[in-house]
Amino acid sequence: MSLTKETIVALEGSLIVGQSGGPTAVINASLAGVVEEAKRHGGIKEIYGAVNGVEGLLKEEMVDLRAETDETISLLSQTPSSALRTCRKKLKENDYERLLSILRAHNIRYFLYIGGNDSADTTHRVGLLARESGYEMRVMAIPKTVDNDLAYMDHCPGYGSVARFNALAVRDAGLDSIAMANSTHIKIVETMGRNTGWITAATALAREEPGDPPDLIYLPEKPFDHDRFLSDVKRVMARGRGCTIAVCEGLRDAEGNIVVESKSAVDTDAFGHRQLGGIGDYLARFLMDALDKKARADKAGTIQRVCGFAQSPVDAAEARMAGTAAVGHACEGTTDQMVTLIRVSSSPYKCETGLAPLSAVANAERPVPGEYINEDGNDVTPAFIEYALPLIGGPLPQYARLKMTRVAKLLP
Amino acid sequence: MSLTKETIVALEGSLIVGQSGGPTAVINASLAGVVEEAKRHGGIKEIYGAVNGVEGLLKEEMVDLRAETDETISLLSQTPSSALRTCRKKLKENDYERLLSILRAHNIRYFLYIGGNDSADTTHRVGLLARESGYEMRVMAIPKTVDNDLAYMDHCPGYGSVARFNALAVRDAGLDSIAMANSTHIKIVETMGRNTGWITAATALAREEPGDPPDLIYLPEKPFDHDRFLSDVKRVMARGRGCTIAVCEGLRDAEGNIVVESKSAVDTDAFGHRQLGGIGDYLARFLMDALDKKARADKAGTIQRVCGFAQSPVDAAEARMAGTAAVGHACEGTTDQMVTLIRVSSSPYKCETGLAPLSAVANAERPVPGEYINEDGNDVTPAFIEYALPLIGGPLPQYARLKMTRVAKLLP
Repeated sequence: MSLTKETIVALEGSLIVGQSGGPTAVINASLAGVVEEAKRHGGIKEIYGAVNGVEGLLKEEMVDLRAETDETISLLSQTPSSALRTCRKKLKENDYERLLSILRAHNIRYFLYIGGNDSADTTHRVGLLARESGYEMRVMAIPKTVDNDLAYMDHCPGYGSVARFNALAVRDAGLDSIAMANSTHIKIVETMGRNTGWITAATALAREEPGDPPDLIYLPEKPFDHDRFLSDVKRVMARGRGCTIAVCEGLRDAEGNIVVESKSAVDTDAFGHRQLGGIGDYLARFLMDALDKKARADKAGTIQRVCGFAQSPVDAAEARMAGTAAVGHACEGTTDQMVTLIRVSSSPYKCETGLAPLSAVANAERPVPGEYINEDGNDVTPAFIEYALPLIGGPLPQYARLKMTRVAKLLP
Repeated sequence: MSLTKETIVALEGSLIVGQSGGPTAVINASLAGVVEEAKRHGGIKEIYGAVNGVEGLLKEEMVDLRAETDETISLLSQTPSSALRTCRKKLKENDYERLLSILRAHNIRYFLYIGGNDSADTTHRVGLLARESGYEMRVMAIPKTVDNDLAYMDHCPGYGSVARFNALAVRDAGLDSIAMANSTHIKIVETMGRNTGWITAATALAREEPGDPPDLIYLPEKPFDHDRFLSDVKRVMARGRGCTIAVCEGLRDAEGNIVVESKSAVDTDAFGHRQLGGIGDYLARFLMDALDKKARADKAGTIQRVCGFAQSPVDAAEARMAGTAAVGHACEGTTDQMVTLIRVSSSPYKCETGLAPLSAVANAERPVPGEYINEDGNDVTPAFIEYALPLIGGPLPQYARLKMTRVAKLLP
């Protein structure tokens, strides 16, 4: 970009930022980045927050973010969930016109929306209508999704923290399972993941040594086969150390159908995404029936996506950086783009921001690539570990490993 | 105790320590305390660990804990789950005789068992048989249970950490729920708790200001009534900030029956305790049917009890202290006792160890007392908060709270 904000493309007016979709552990870090950077640009007058994203904005529900102290804004970086509140709103045609009237009325020239591909689509349409109406406004999206399924970027803010939570949780759950006598215990940890297995794959980061739990990992990118699953579990159980299994809520069979289909109509959100859940309990029951062993399912559910106490510092820093970059680019004249994360190097890990057109991001989804899934479809590959390890922000806390030196038996 | 170990009651021989029952975040801290203290007593020759508690000991499965480095032993204090592995074994009469033969063969004079009331019973019987057989051996139990239901003590090692986990998790889950537009979301967090509501009650520690989630808390100490539950939820939902509900897996109806009874025979453990689960999903379905709102259940399951990443430093220190005290008392001649925790003062918080007879601890269970539950049976009282707050080891990490200063509306 050769234009600089001071010379040619300065656009005076106010800025609004909103949050959309499921909350994460770091979406507020992006908000902090936006507000901090906006304060550095003299052309930006008011800094507003849209309450509940576009859903609140349609009702002109806005808050004054200049009224917050610097300390509060900074503290947002370690505060999970969506501080401005969020929505899952699919706008109708006349909603966009209403939205634009509100933005015009408040002289808003910078529209920033933190969210996933649905939010990118919304942002793109807002920008399109503004341009068609001859209203100069720059629109930028800031990526956010625990699912890590946005295309055109190495990874998404939000993923590193949910990955860290699941690595920590599965490490502990695996230790719990191994500790039981024999061990005849089967532990299933169900993770989030609507269509992709990125979150489930991250449970592999729990391992410090070969053979550490999780023993089996199933992603929706590979069709789930009950017979193969059963034979996998039997093989692991034969080692006598129990079996810790990570499964994705979105597991699909060979026909592409969700294995455990949600039962109720209220389980579908406004974008038609099915709200999943229950595969863990279902598979625990399946294994108990088939093997006559004790099987238990843990399902941290939303706790994993907003888990402030497992926030990845790398994730938080990158989320903030993405927010900062969005404002910086918009002030330099950029519009209709989503900020992306580009990995410059893996070792040492280095990441920069880039840009991708909103319309491209809006309609793409990035599954876990084949090279990250092992041939048997029950684990990830070393390439995935190399990819994901830097994102969780440093090694997991060290645990003791006893040598377990056996004492010679004296009795028959 | 007027006898000192140096003068009268020194008893030369080896020590064995075992772990029993469900793993926790701090049961290894007790193990560390035992080993560290045992090394300080010249009369103690070998320091053994029973693998998988009495179940492994019956097979003479023992490890040499003097073979571990000081660093490894110290690191145990921050390592969740049961490093020596555990069991849920109810011994038969001839099992006790076999056990004593093994202990005699290895000249074990100190038998220490870390566990709950079932373990206290086992320890008591081992000691009884030794005495009847004229074999001088001191037996001590070290308390461990996330359930916090052991009698004769202020609280149990293991509880502070599961309490911290649930306070952190419910705070985040509550923020997630509030963040959704309207908010029409109902979030149910299901906690562990076989017969008592101590763990569920701890979710109240998530609150920093009045009105913070959780909105409703249900313990098994009060009969669960579907109609009252529904009217509670409706009242909370009318405020438009969603509803975050903490429920105990062991909720019971007015007849004392578990609300969601486990379905399968394999769900009963060796002591006849039913393995529960599923009340969260059940109540989510109940509310969706009754209210036509979205309701979701999170069930961290075993993750909560072994959660190393939410370990309470106070809990870890006390668990270690209990292990240390057990060895110290045994060396001074004490036997057939469980170490207890006695609160000396609440503010500033100060806790010491005490002793209680094994036979007394074995057959008692301590429910949440009435003064800790509010009259409506849907929350805890300030007295409970005062009791539980010091146990989680310091305040939860600070989060930002936006003032949310509203911007004046300009459009009709």
